[in-house]
Amino acid sequence: MIRFYGGKVLTMQGGCELRSAEVWTDADKIAFVGEPDAQQLENTAFEREIDLHGDVLMPGFKNAHTHSPMTFLRSYADDMPLQDWLTKQIFPMEAKLTSERIYHLTKLAVLEYLTSGCTAAFDMYFMRDGFVQACEEMGFRSVMCGAVMGAQESARELEEDFEKYNGKSPLISFMLGFHAEYTCSKELLTAIGGLAKKYGAPVAMHSSETRREVDECIARHGMTPTQLFDSLGIYDHGGAAFHCVHLTDDDMQILKKRNVSAVHCPASNLKLASGIAPIVQMQQAGIDLALGTDGPASNNALDMFREMYLMTVLQKSVNADASACSPQSVLTAATVGGARAMGLADCDVIAPGKQADLIVLDMDKPNMQPVNNIVSNIVYSADKTNVRLTMCAGRVLYERGEFAFADKEEIYANANRIINEMKTE
Amino acid sequence: MIRFYGGKVLTMQGGCELRSAEVWTDADKIAFVGEPDAQQLENTAFEREIDLHGDVLMPGFKNAHTHSPMTFLRSYADDMPLQDWLTKQIFPMEAKLTSERIYHLTKLAVLEYLTSGCTAAFDMYFMRDGFVQACEEMGFRSVMCGAVMGAQESARELEEDFEKYNGKSPLISFMLGFHAEYTCSKELLTAIGGLAKKYGAPVAMHSSETRREVDECIARHGMTPTQLFDSLGIYDHGGAAFHCVHLTDDDMQILKKRNVSAVHCPASNLKLASGIAPIVQMQQAGIDLALGTDGPASNNALDMFREMYLMTVLQKSVNADASACSPQSVLTAATVGGARAMGLADCDVIAPGKQADLIVLDMDKPNMQPVNNIVSNIVYSADKTNVRLTMCAGRVLYERGEFAFADKEEIYANANRIINEMKTE
Repeated sequence: MIRFYGGKVLTMQGGCELRSAEVWTDADKIAFVGEPDAQQLENTAFEREIDLHGDVLMPGFKNAHTHSPMTFLRSYADDMPLQDWLTKQIFPMEAKLTSERIYHLTKLAVLEYLTSGCTAAFDMYFMRDGFVQACEEMGFRSVMCGAVMGAQESARELEEDFEKYNGKSPLISFMLGFHAEYTCSKELLTAIGGLAKKYGAPVAMHSSETRREVDECIARHGMTPTQLFDSLGIYDHGGAAFHCVHLTDDDMQILKKRNVSAVHCPASNLKLASGIAPIVQMQQAGIDLALGTDGPASNNALDMFREMYLMTVLQKSVNADASACSPQSVLTAATVGGARAMGLADCDVIAPGKQADLIVLDMDKPNMQPVNNIVSNIVYSADKTNVRLTMCAGRVLYERGEFAFADKEEIYANANRIINEMKTE
Repeated sequence: MIRFYGGKVLTMQGGCELRSAEVWTDADKIAFVGEPDAQQLENTAFEREIDLHGDVLMPGFKNAHTHSPMTFLRSYADDMPLQDWLTKQIFPMEAKLTSERIYHLTKLAVLEYLTSGCTAAFDMYFMRDGFVQACEEMGFRSVMCGAVMGAQESARELEEDFEKYNGKSPLISFMLGFHAEYTCSKELLTAIGGLAKKYGAPVAMHSSETRREVDECIARHGMTPTQLFDSLGIYDHGGAAFHCVHLTDDDMQILKKRNVSAVHCPASNLKLASGIAPIVQMQQAGIDLALGTDGPASNNALDMFREMYLMTVLQKSVNADASACSPQSVLTAATVGGARAMGLADCDVIAPGKQADLIVLDMDKPNMQPVNNIVSNIVYSADKTNVRLTMCAGRVLYERGEFAFADKEEIYANANRIINEMKTE
């Protein structure tokens, strides 16, 4: 067992509950949250006791939309519109990827997740064996999301991946998913609706990221992407829609009714000039929200603090209302909301029996002082320098700037070697 | 002399020039930039030699608009509109400040500046002796900006401060300035125009932060704030206008013609729902731009990386153009542009004879890998974890998380004591 004591616990149970309590973890689970009596302490053997010194322990952030292996494209093709960026830079480089390259590039992303207090990622990419190997070796939790596109046949590949990767490892799961409406035939989308029904499973996809995507979908199908997916049964068992920048009122009603989480990626949406998602309206409609970085090629950091800050201040700005989008709602999206979107019911809050996916935030930094309001401090002022410790499934993977199970220099060297090889191939 | 070697130097001379070079500092100045020969090395006695290990040395960021002592109000009154925030929370608490309190609260801000790679602040506040003492003790450079308001008599206070604080210390200077149009009588503004003429000096002020401010100024004076200030000679010798969110084309022509820097504070403008400044249009008009955090009560961090990221991605979003506001232009505003706005002609670039106000950015972190483009990495991906070292006037004040000349625990304790006292007074 590992004992955390001497700090505060933001359990995220029933909102932003903040308690003075100890947290004990046993193997991959949280074993105890509370004030132990002398007897309990005496009877328990701890492999490690960590004095929080007033720091805050809370659930790890869930990065609910990313493309981890795209680290190789960081700062490679900035300042371009989405379509040019995809077709002229991203797709040609991606064609050069191999599973081995994805293995190394994923490791670089996981390092950055850990520095950002992120304990799980909802990853949409391809050549998954390299990705799975990297996450397992590093002890990092991931939910992979199907990313099929094209013709109806792709549905078989999606089903095979769904069968292959679920249950493979306690750290890895797989959710039905596809790239986006504009890259899938209607036959494929119909077949995916069939898979949702067959498995009673949620489905995830890019949706309504750009105005053009929505307009073209309406021209093609007479419906918005949300309406189209709903009409095909894709949302019958819930799911997650990445971006949701351009939604109609009817779209929002569908997401709410079908228990589909909207995954907000504010940094990417700004940088690619896609727009600002209607978060306040989605909150009013009661839609479950989650937060993601999108891939490092379009962000370019993998930094949940940046996303949290943007989520709230952009809503204040576009709604001309400084009270819009409370820090409590942001912290909920970044933790509990992400876990819900990713199907990680055991990774959402700090409570006995839950997975020990947690972080310690360092209050002993100038940006967290004075302590007027810890939740506001985290959302409005915190950054990666405040991540003291990141634990996934009960293992401390990152602590005070050091990675416990990863050789960062080797990972950087491999990433640089790979991008240089790809540039000249 | 201190020798930095083994890294890259982003001199910021003539744009974002990146060189492989050594940088030597002697007392408060940069003594040498280049590749020394064996003879030079042999003949030079270094008090310290710092191996950059491939890291990037560059000019420190200039925080060109802030209210440093407002650290005590961090997370104290978030999520409120500007007018309520000022009148119901900020002003009543500020009435309880003393010079001794300002001394302690400033120290907390300076700690955070150092963690953010910031080597100088353009500070607008009051009770200046406490502020000056804190900056001098900590070795931190500041330009104070006049903040007078009210009736014509205040001009005398402004002139006294101008005479009193300039030349007092190599680290401290004072620029003529006033709070804003809406807090100053026309007689006071006229008198300030007279001081600008008398001293041949630039003048700084909040300007055009909110729509309401501009509309009310037009109703009162038949002119925008920019037009009004120009008509009174306030801009005759240049200056700095903080915020510049709501400008007309004519305002921009005036700023350009009068060599007035526009100081952009994107985080504060978003959080207080003031709007998004027309940076692209200002760039097209050839206006000098600088970047600031505004005070910690309205941001809530003092983080130049956050401001840099916001500066570019917000322009991409509002202009629906992913190529808008290049990272080069952002880095220029955060360094050279800030120095220009603050009258710190010797603190702008890395070159012999300039002040040794510099930082080292740690590339040995996952968010800076791979190294496709260092300028893009800094603007789009870097954060406070990348600040390896901050040097002001030739002294290393912060290095690898440690403060060389400050007791952070004592500073935190004082800040918490003061805010708790003020809450109950």
